[in-house]
Amino acid sequence: MNHETPPPFASMSEIRQDPLLGRWVIVATNRMRRPNAFARAGAAPPEPERDPFAEGNEHLTPPEIQAIRAPGARANGPGWKARVVPNRFPVLRIEGALDREGEGLYDRISGIGAHEVVIETPKAGQMLEELPLDHIAAVIGLWRARITDLLKDARFRYILVFKNHGWQAGATLSHSHSQIIALPVTPKAIKEKLAGALAYYEQKERNIFADILRQELKDGRRIVDQNGAFVCFCPYAARFPFEICVMPRRQNPEFHRIGDDELLPLADALKSSLLRLRAGLDRPQYNVILHTAPARFPKRGYWSTLDQDFRWHLEITPRLTQIAGFEMGTGFYVNPVMPEEAARFLKEVEV
Amino acid sequence: MNHETPPPFASMSEIRQDPLLGRWVIVATNRMRRPNAFARAGAAPPEPERDPFAEGNEHLTPPEIQAIRAPGARANGPGWKARVVPNRFPVLRIEGALDREGEGLYDRISGIGAHEVVIETPKAGQMLEELPLDHIAAVIGLWRARITDLLKDARFRYILVFKNHGWQAGATLSHSHSQIIALPVTPKAIKEKLAGALAYYEQKERNIFADILRQELKDGRRIVDQNGAFVCFCPYAARFPFEICVMPRRQNPEFHRIGDDELLPLADALKSSLLRLRAGLDRPQYNVILHTAPARFPKRGYWSTLDQDFRWHLEITPRLTQIAGFEMGTGFYVNPVMPEEAARFLKEVEV
Repeated sequence: MNHETPPPFASMSEIRQDPLLGRWVIVATNRMRRPNAFARAGAAPPEPERDPFAEGNEHLTPPEIQAIRAPGARANGPGWKARVVPNRFPVLRIEGALDREGEGLYDRISGIGAHEVVIETPKAGQMLEELPLDHIAAVIGLWRARITDLLKDARFRYILVFKNHGWQAGATLSHSHSQIIALPVTPKAIKEKLAGALAYYEQKERNIFADILRQELKDGRRIVDQNGAFVCFCPYAARFPFEICVMPRRQNPEFHRIGDDELLPLADALKSSLLRLRAGLDRPQYNVILHTAPARFPKRGYWSTLDQDFRWHLEITPRLTQIAGFEMGTGFYVNPVMPEEAARFLKEVEV
Repeated sequence: MNHETPPPFASMSEIRQDPLLGRWVIVATNRMRRPNAFARAGAAPPEPERDPFAEGNEHLTPPEIQAIRAPGARANGPGWKARVVPNRFPVLRIEGALDREGEGLYDRISGIGAHEVVIETPKAGQMLEELPLDHIAAVIGLWRARITDLLKDARFRYILVFKNHGWQAGATLSHSHSQIIALPVTPKAIKEKLAGALAYYEQKERNIFADILRQELKDGRRIVDQNGAFVCFCPYAARFPFEICVMPRRQNPEFHRIGDDELLPLADALKSSLLRLRAGLDRPQYNVILHTAPARFPKRGYWSTLDQDFRWHLEITPRLTQIAGFEMGTGFYVNPVMPEEAARFLKEVEV
């Protein structure tokens, strides 16, 4: 996600739907570069005085939305552990009404939403997994607080929290950060997860996530780590080598309802997973994606069983392989490492 | 796709299904590398004497399946324009029975299929789009012939033809080639396209591809090029900047039923599209994906209307942006270039 390049074109963003697949695409031309200016390789880390996420450079970001600060430290100045700021080049904008429009066969929506950045540490070069547990727990607490706040806006259907680490994983700034995007439509990938969970529940009257967790714990071959509240395992049908799922033991469809008592255990599970990837795989690029339930609309029947059938979880995907024509043409993935081998390897990494 | 690294582990491949999403993953450990050996950057072009796809090095590939040769030139020797050979490190193997097996919650299938490589030219460094039209038409003819042949095997449900150009697009050999994979299951992405096309047809008794083509030709803003048999345009909801769809004017769901009279016009449309991307975008990496109908099983109701509702087409996707956490978490794509702008730019490129 680009925070650096000044936009050469007037800001403009719209959400278009593929008429065949129902898949949505955000066309965000404020992020446009000239045709010959698409980056070919990773952005170099900015020089310290130009790093907009470093302590002392708070004037280089828009005013902060929320922060974790030492008592007495003033907003938008130094003295913080983590900050949430609006993305300077958002894919969606908070201002405006939500207009839906047809164009012959095609449908589009105005590009309304929110796009925020969680700066995880004041120090450039310090990665999320290097932070002390209470600091990671505080970052997770910021995710929770921002989702809770954004869900108050009735225009938003889904809040996505994710982290891109490394340029191949989509990051254009190397300073450790995560991102929050509020969307005016529920993404297809989320609808499919919900539909799959509901279908399983209707058939068996059991929660599929609970069943997966039970089978994984009993089998044991794909478990990487666990604590009292979370289990880290390599999914049976992992798309990527060394992919890890972090699953809560407590049934809860909505991440923003996690208890305070879950923050430190989640920080522990996330830190353990990321450190194992880092030590075992020589600092791979990776994504972390939070899967949670969409905003609730009581009239939609299939969300009324959410509390029973869906459970939030994290997906951690190291980016060691390329997404190629085969994956793009089929939705099939080719994974060169057996998940059982991946888990055994990661479990044995010293952290 | 890897043709170079010798497999450190015994060959083994299975197809696993995600229990929640129904998504299939091929775990192909004959392509496995040691955890610390995942490539970080593009493979350098091989030295000429080690390029397995170069003329004179036919002994470096498995025996050819089919080739276009000068009269009198012997199989597996020099004197060819294009060759089809088995992939040395296939993601799926042709030998064996198709076993379906459960494991608690989970389902898997043995990794049966076919994985072939179409070597498009005897010369290293010569790209598909640089070849004369009749040579490109001959390569397209090989795609057609291989699909026709592979569909005779009743184990195969779908035959995918695709091309990865550049390491970020998934290629590990720079010598110009395309790939053919025969799958024992119909990929979800194809099922979704079929279902979308059928739903549109049932509602309107019209073909959605014909309607899209009609609207695009009438509107004109997204057209890049056209000839008597094909139209090249930037899709309304393009996922990638400068993405191009090549759509036949003639209704036909199955690529392998294209007429001989369509080979040269398709070569022309493909060459024009690829040359425009190359000249306009400074030789981008890209994928070409052929979307066609799956093998026919008359008992499946939704394939009985295929002739009316589905149409084969090509997708050409330059890889200028990264697939990041947002795309992976939502199935949403962020495209920084308006398709109308992209088409105008590509139309004006001198080729």
